Amino acid sequence: MMPERQLVEKIARALPSGRRGPSRLRLGIGDDAAVLSPGGRTDWVLSCDTFLEGVHFRVKTHPPDSVGYKALARAVSDLAAMGATPRFFLLTLALPSSRIGPWLDAFLQGMDRAARELGISAIGGDTTRSRAVFVSITVLGEIAPSRALTRSGARPGDIIYVSGKLGRAQLGLELVRRGHASNRQLRALLQPHLYPRIRVELGSWLARHRIARSAMDLSDGLSTDLARLCAASKVGAKIYARRVPSVVIPAAVARKLSKRNLDPRQLALHGGEDYELLFTVSPRQAKKLSRAPGAAAITPIGKITRNRHLILVAPDGREQRLQSQGWDPFR
Amino acid sequence: MMPERQLVEKIARALPSGRRGPSRLRLGIGDDAAVLSPGGRTDWVLSCDTFLEGVHFRVKTHPPDSVGYKALARAVSDLAAMGATPRFFLLTLALPSSRIGPWLDAFLQGMDRAARELGISAIGGDTTRSRAVFVSITVLGEIAPSRALTRSGARPGDIIYVSGKLGRAQLGLELVRRGHASNRQLRALLQPHLYPRIRVELGSWLARHRIARSAMDLSDGLSTDLARLCAASKVGAKIYARRVPSVVIPAAVARKLSKRNLDPRQLALHGGEDYELLFTVSPRQAKKLSRAPGAAAITPIGKITRNRHLILVAPDGREQRLQSQGWDPFR
Repeated sequence: MMPERQLVEKIARALPSGRRGPSRLRLGIGDDAAVLSPGGRTDWVLSCDTFLEGVHFRVKTHPPDSVGYKALARAVSDLAAMGATPRFFLLTLALPSSRIGPWLDAFLQGMDRAARELGISAIGGDTTRSRAVFVSITVLGEIAPSRALTRSGARPGDIIYVSGKLGRAQLGLELVRRGHASNRQLRALLQPHLYPRIRVELGSWLARHRIARSAMDLSDGLSTDLARLCAASKVGAKIYARRVPSVVIPAAVARKLSKRNLDPRQLALHGGEDYELLFTVSPRQAKKLSRAPGAAAITPIGKITRNRHLILVAPDGREQRLQSQGWDPFR
Repeated sequence: MMPERQLVEKIARALPSGRRGPSRLRLGIGDDAAVLSPGGRTDWVLSCDTFLEGVHFRVKTHPPDSVGYKALARAVSDLAAMGATPRFFLLTLALPSSRIGPWLDAFLQGMDRAARELGISAIGGDTTRSRAVFVSITVLGEIAPSRALTRSGARPGDIIYVSGKLGRAQLGLELVRRGHASNRQLRALLQPHLYPRIRVELGSWLARHRIARSAMDLSDGLSTDLARLCAASKVGAKIYARRVPSVVIPAAVARKLSKRNLDPRQLALHGGEDYELLFTVSPRQAKKLSRAPGAAAITPIGKITRNRHLILVAPDGREQRLQSQGWDPFR
């Protein structure tokens, strides 16, 4: 099976690409978003994201307002990863006639809440009929010229940081899969999967103050996304398993769940959809991070290396290759 | 069943809309595209369009290169309708694993050809797995500030024009439905359905020289789209059946087809997907149209009226209401 990365490369090779195109394009296919320079005091950052019934969510298990909320939130996460301020979005919505009533109302309520929290307005879209619910969202954000954070700026010696605790969304998904989506007692544990928080302020701060040398959002799991950042920057990385901030599974919840796939460290290394930020900072700049929004939730987990391998240092000090085991829709 | 218009209104009401938003938005939900003013020497025009297996095309009957070509062409048609010059696009592609091989190659070849003809470059996108092929495209175009053509500018007394002959795409669709998609003898008749020509130059000329007062593209049939233009402009229209330029069905072809639905005048009034331009011009400006690109293919078909009805004048001079009988995915 062809992984998604190869598919994207195939598409990029086949089409006339903005990369070679007019000077107004600063960044084309391959990063979290594209960057356009209309020539004024701002650059525009654009990205699109798809959210599909049967692949990313299930109508039977996911509350419709969470589908609307998350569809927009995850699209905006690509803007946060570039350091851009969210401004506008276009909504493409294909859905069966049976979903036009109460389901759509709740979906739109969730999306409205996300839009208000993220400060983004709808400016257009397209609707059509389909068998399954299909959501595609294009987001536009603004950033000062040349300040966009990319995946390709990491350099050997940079310290690697993540925001938040990793694996929380995967734990939420495991709870949903086991039929606990509406369990009010588990609400706090479900929230990262159903209503992910997006690090817009942190991304914007890192870009504005030129603190981060590279950044991306963690959508497909640390082991997969770190490999992408390193590939784009032509570097390697060494991370310490002990330092990766992991989800905490309360004992009462652990008893409810089968043990399979629920090692917190495995969830943190490979679990997808956290939408936290992964970024690198030169050692000289590192102390400034204490002034970042949500500074307490930022953790150094390792270093960028010249050697292009991804190394995981186990708690006992042994080094091993970090294999990408995150989410790939085509795997 | 709720028609698409009501669905769009429901969505627009539910979400924070750019319409009330920051001053940089010139035009939000409801026209062919949104218009943003980044403050420089150009406005950005944005639109998205969906092209879905089982709704807009069938994998068994439509050549894959035509699916790629048309998906991009129809999206660009929204830019042409605003008078914008196509520049960039983002491609969202969801497809089954079985379509990643030769089908995708041919799809991308068709899209590449459309992109080169239309002068537009890919700058990003998203891919995922799905059961059916789903294409969503966001296009960006440029236009001089405040020159974008809208649906809402028509005034009583304006002359109504269309480009090209109408009903050609519907005739092509009828041929495809009857199994003639690969019939080389019918190539010229199939082309408007499989590889629609987009009126980018005409739209751009009408906007640049401030000739048109209102415009849109004919995607869902004249009777449906004229009603939309009149509703947006709060006017009515009177059109003359005799003047509407209709597809010509060669006698040899007519014999091959059942007669049902194939009255050229009906195809011209209600057939969808012609992607020709519908626009209005004040009588004082009308003579300038002789200098338009493709001027010979522009035809006056009636007038905008203060009375908000849509009237069709039959060849015998009798007047009747023009009912919208075009394409609506939710009807």
